[in-house]
Formats: sequence, structure tokens, C-alpha cells
Amino acid sequence: MNNFMFYSPAKVLFGRGVLSEIGKECRPYGKKALLLYGKESLKTSGLYDQIISRLKKEGIAVVEHQGVQPNPVLPHALEGVEIARRESVDFILAAGGGSVIDEAKGIASGVYAEDDLWDYYSGKKAVEKSLPIIAVQTQPATSSEMNMVGVLTNPDRNEKFGLRSPHNVPKVAFLDPETTFSIPLKYTAYACFDIMSHLLEGYFTTTGSFSPVQDGFVEGLATGVIDSLERVLKNPEDYDARASIMWAGALAWNGLANAGLEGAAIPSHMFEHPLSALYDVAHGAGLAVVMPAWLKYRKMEIAPRIIKFGQKILRMEGLDTSKEEKACDLVIGRFEEFIASIGCPLTLKEAGIVSPDMDELVKQVTTLSKLWGIGGYGDSDIRAVYSLCL
Amino acid sequence: MNNFMFYSPAKVLFGRGVLSEIGKECRPYGKKALLLYGKESLKTSGLYDQIISRLKKEGIAVVEHQGVQPNPVLPHALEGVEIARRESVDFILAAGGGSVIDEAKGIASGVYAEDDLWDYYSGKKAVEKSLPIIAVQTQPATSSEMNMVGVLTNPDRNEKFGLRSPHNVPKVAFLDPETTFSIPLKYTAYACFDIMSHLLEGYFTTTGSFSPVQDGFVEGLATGVIDSLERVLKNPEDYDARASIMWAGALAWNGLANAGLEGAAIPSHMFEHPLSALYDVAHGAGLAVVMPAWLKYRKMEIAPRIIKFGQKILRMEGLDTSKEEKACDLVIGRFEEFIASIGCPLTLKEAGIVSPDMDELVKQVTTLSKLWGIGGYGDSDIRAVYSLCL
Repeated sequence: MNNFMFYSPAKVLFGRGVLSEIGKECRPYGKKALLLYGKESLKTSGLYDQIISRLKKEGIAVVEHQGVQPNPVLPHALEGVEIARRESVDFILAAGGGSVIDEAKGIASGVYAEDDLWDYYSGKKAVEKSLPIIAVQTQPATSSEMNMVGVLTNPDRNEKFGLRSPHNVPKVAFLDPETTFSIPLKYTAYACFDIMSHLLEGYFTTTGSFSPVQDGFVEGLATGVIDSLERVLKNPEDYDARASIMWAGALAWNGLANAGLEGAAIPSHMFEHPLSALYDVAHGAGLAVVMPAWLKYRKMEIAPRIIKFGQKILRMEGLDTSKEEKACDLVIGRFEEFIASIGCPLTLKEAGIVSPDMDELVKQVTTLSKLWGIGGYGDSDIRAVYSLCL
Repeated sequence: MNNFMFYSPAKVLFGRGVLSEIGKECRPYGKKALLLYGKESLKTSGLYDQIISRLKKEGIAVVEHQGVQPNPVLPHALEGVEIARRESVDFILAAGGGSVIDEAKGIASGVYAEDDLWDYYSGKKAVEKSLPIIAVQTQPATSSEMNMVGVLTNPDRNEKFGLRSPHNVPKVAFLDPETTFSIPLKYTAYACFDIMSHLLEGYFTTTGSFSPVQDGFVEGLATGVIDSLERVLKNPEDYDARASIMWAGALAWNGLANAGLEGAAIPSHMFEHPLSALYDVAHGAGLAVVMPAWLKYRKMEIAPRIIKFGQKILRMEGLDTSKEEKACDLVIGRFEEFIASIGCPLTLKEAGIVSPDMDELVKQVTTLSKLWGIGGYGDSDIRAVYSLCL
């Protein structure tokens, strides 16, 4: 295990009806909220009315900023910053999926940014202060409700970058599994794939040293996600299975999965972010395409880990491990079967990307690899990984 | 999954040499510390000098309170309260095992207690304010470094009670696995058993509903602890295995293992605490005695869970499950073999308790069952469980 810092101070309220506490929980953070959300679904689901009436009861005024996109963009966040400043809001209440909570982090930091907000994303500056954030997570996957990371896309520069600051961990996070019953199965599968990718980025590191408890954490949660998804695909209103996925989403990227594997890289995300930035593909779908490709490219370096992944997570009993490369191929093949079985794409074409701009993709991965400190990916490596996605 | 609140805001610094940061990390909490520790071993290990010199460099004055016992007692905590008040310390720096950090919580709350500190422990009053605590964990097991719980024994009343308050979560926790290299193997095994008991209390609940991700978390961590202990028993300086145990200790009782199983009871602890209170037995050793006994007593109510425990955690491949009771007996038998193999006691006698005072034990368990809200344990149940420990 490498040295690490773990810090996830969000107070999580999890379960049926926890939103009834939202007024009381917001109260310590001030008298005026910026309510940030995405689509009309917050209103049709009844959540909007519930939130507004609970805040009203506590005497908290609400200013709204609607229309956050699935891959949230900088201009919309900047509009939010303007509203938050003009209206002198005390805190941000982000209600929706990871995209909404991610954008809230940009706004929360942006309110105190003197210059260009994007400087925080491109690593030129560090956040020193943010507005408090209260998160209502309705589409679990990113753990944005428990972590310090928020991702935005800058369309002018075609960049999708993350901002990382302890000032941006939400103060309180509400997770009610019943709010996820209505998520279409396709998107539930994308979310589960995203959660698994978060769990697995460190598991396949080429630079860390593994420990039984860290492996157990990843293997336990990943098999839990697979089993829960299987149940939800049969019965979308299976509460315990939905709850299981929601909680795994929170735990998979709040710092626990990579603890001790710091500096381990998140290579699948490095290859996926440019796809969402350029082609607006759903993040989970993009990950399903790049992850097996990346495993194929790296297989001989991480063969023992791929075999362990097959045995412990895909539960391939009796896997013939006598020939390492062949065993890896069997595991990756089984992984692709799993991905197809849950309705995720396996190629760029299946993800709706017909003619990928290879030069631009290479450029962006190169930028990210510098930003995230991930070595070992020259032009030819990057092209090779994407070629395996065709 | 039941509803739950998860809140573990401690900033954890984990790894080799993390104590070099202690001065800097203490600085925001004031200019005068109460250094709380147990034995001379803090000095002989060199940790004492390291801490003192790092604090000095930051201009932080240190007042000391030494001599915390393995099962920490109220009178020693009250002495600490007196020193902390008299010296007007700004924060408490607790360096040692769970007992030291537990006692620090009593002192931290006691400084602001107007009346009897024990009122907080017996549930008569709730903590409203505490001094900040910085924790240096050197004997992992209790997760006291990441949670809101602290246990003390009141020798005048022969009671061992816990205090639970969000005000008592340490601000910063330092965990350096190398500080655990010198823990004798017997005590390492006790610690691992304690960690496993924390993981398993919720796993065997008779009132909760289980979910795949929660089960995966417990099974992954418990197998990780078993595998790590096996490595440490062969090589006490196996860093990754020691680190693995240390991190499992932090995660097993910081709220994650029981999340969604709230109200699930901690029956093994309910039966163990009176043993440590009356006979000063090591907590992990006491748990090793009561846990199989409790499983035997409850086996027909939780048979499917015992079988799952055997299959997933004890990894009994090919367990014959055609007859439920017999399968449970096989699993509990295998569990006892495991306990003996790591050097833990299996009976009260092996734990050094030759003539247990059954009436007093029954009285104490009855008190704890009320305090902790654990139903279903009348006099005859309690006697039956302890009889299985003979």
C-alpha cells in the first residue's frame, strides 16, 4: 500500500424519505439557496415541490438555476456563478445526478474566483474557498455527493477536466434509493459500469502494491454491483438492489477504492473523457468501450491482476490459468460478454461515434496524462488503445 | 437496507512516516496540547520524541497525561479532565491504541461537562461540545480514530459503557503501519478478531435486510483480514499485510460495516463488555469466546447467514448445505478451528476466567441491551449464551 490521505467529511443521509430532513439540514448554512438542477424531471417526480416546501418552512429563500446538461458545461456554470453573486446566496443546493453536483462545485468555487474559473480546472490555480454545497443525489455513479471532485466540459476548448478541492465536498448528501426507481435500465447499466470502473482503476494499477483488504474492498463491492444490477434489470423497483447500487456509487469514488494506490492513474477515465467531450457520449457508455480495449493493450503487464479479476469479480470458476495470455483473453472475453449482456456498447460505433478524430483524441489524452500525472502513454500507445475500440 | 446516517469526517493520513506532518496538522487547533498516552512504549519506540519535537517546532506547548489502561477507566479520564481544565489546553493529542483514543473522547467531552461525566455514558445526557482530538493510532482495531464512539469502564459500578457523539470524531488521524510491527502476535490476533467482530455484528443481524453491496463490503474486508493475519503470523514485518489490517481496523467500525443495518445490534460486544469490565480480559480475546457461543445459540434463526459466512468468508468450498442445522454446525466448527489457529481462546477458562459470576454478567448484559436497544435477550437467553462459553 502506498501512502494516502482519506478525507470524506460529507454527512450522508441515506434511505427512504430522507428528504424530509432537508430544511433542517440546510438551515445552518444560511437563509438563501441557489437551487441547481437539470431537467423538468425534478418537477414531475415531485422532488422539486418537496424541496421548495421544506426550505420555505425553515425560512430559506430559493433562487433557481436550471438546465444542467448530462456532461455539464462551463458556460452554464458561469451563469450560475453570476446568479449566485448577484443574489448573494449563502449555499448551493444541487439536486440531480453527478453532473448537477459536479457543476455545483464549479459554481461554488467560481463565486470566489477572481479570474478565469477554468484556471482551476487546467491546474493553474488552487481553490481557496467555496460556497457550502448540499447535495441531493438522484442518479448515483460518480460519488460527487461524497468527494472533492467535479468535472466540467469547456466547449470552446473541447476539454473535459476535473477540479479537485477539499472545499468542494458537500456538507450534507441525501440519497433516497426510491428516487432511482425511474432511471431507465440502459442508464442504470451505464451507471453501474461507471461505478465498476471507479472500483477497478486502482485494481489494475501498474505502479502500486496491493493489499488483501484493498483487494477485498474492490472485489466485494464490484460483485455486489453486478449482483444488484442483475436484480434491477429483472425488477426496477427492487429496493435493496437499487439501494445497493446507490451506496456503491457513493463508496466507489469517495477515496476508498484507490486508498493506498495513490498515483495509480485512472487510465479508463483518461481515455473516456475525450469521447464525452468531443461526442457527448454517455460517460458510462464510453467507459464500457475503452475499458476492455485498455485491458487488451496492457494485458501482458497486468496479467496476474486480470486473472484475479476474472476469478474474484467475474467469478470464472475453474479458469485455466496454465497459459497466462490465454487466461487473460478468456477473462477479457468474458468481460465483454458481461458488458453486452447489460446493454452497454463495446465499440465506438455502437456508442454512436462513427468517424473518431484520432488526432484530436490523442491530443486530449496527452493533455490529461500530464494533468493527472499518468505516465507511459505516448502517441502510439494512445492510438493503439483507441484502435482496439473500433 | 434500513435507513442510515454515515458521518466520518476525520482526515486520515495513512502510511510510512506520516507523523512528520503532525506539527503542521495540529497547528490549526491551538497552541497547547494535552498529550494522552498509555505506556512507556511510546517513549521506547521513539514516537514520543518525534511528536514532542514536531509540536515544539510549531510552537505548540505540551501537557502530559500518561498511564491509560488497556480497558480505560473513568477515574483516569477524570484526572485528564482536571489537567485539561487547569492547563486550559486547546486540544487533545491521543497517541496509542483504541483505549487511548477512547479515553481522549471522555476527556474531550468531560472538559465541558457541568455535572457527572458518567451521565453521558449511561445515556442520561448528550454531549454538546468537546475539545478537538488529534489521534495517532498505533494498535489498530477499534476505529476509534475515525468514529464517534469511546468506551470507558467505571470500576465503582463495574460498568463498561460507550459514549457516542459526532463532536468526538478526531479531526485528524495518523496511521503508520510500521508502528504496528512490534505488536506481539497474540495481540495482533486479538485485534484482528475484534476487527472481524465489528464487520460481522451487522452481517448476522436478525432484524435488518441485506443488500449485495453491504455483504460484499463485509465479506471482502473480512477475507482480507484473515489473509493479512496469516501473512503477519509468518512475517510480523510484512508491510502490506500490517497496513491491510490497520486500514481494515479503521473501516470496520467507522459506520460503513453497519450502514443499512442500523438498529442491528452488536450482540457479541454486548456479551463481551461485561467480561472485560469484570475480569479485565483483552477485548479481542473475550470476543473470540462469546462469538461462536452466540452463533450456536442463535443458529436456527440465522442459518442462511451462517452458511453464507462459511462459504464466503471462511471459504468452505463444497460445504454440504442439504441439511441446514448440520451445515451451521460445520461452519461454527470451522470458525472455532480458525479462532484456535490464530491463538485466541475459545472458552472462558482459556481466557483466564475460572469462576464467572453469572448473576452479575446477566445483570450487565440486561443493562447494555436496554442502553443499546437490543431486544430478545431475557435472563435465560443470556445464561444460555454464557453457558456455551464454559
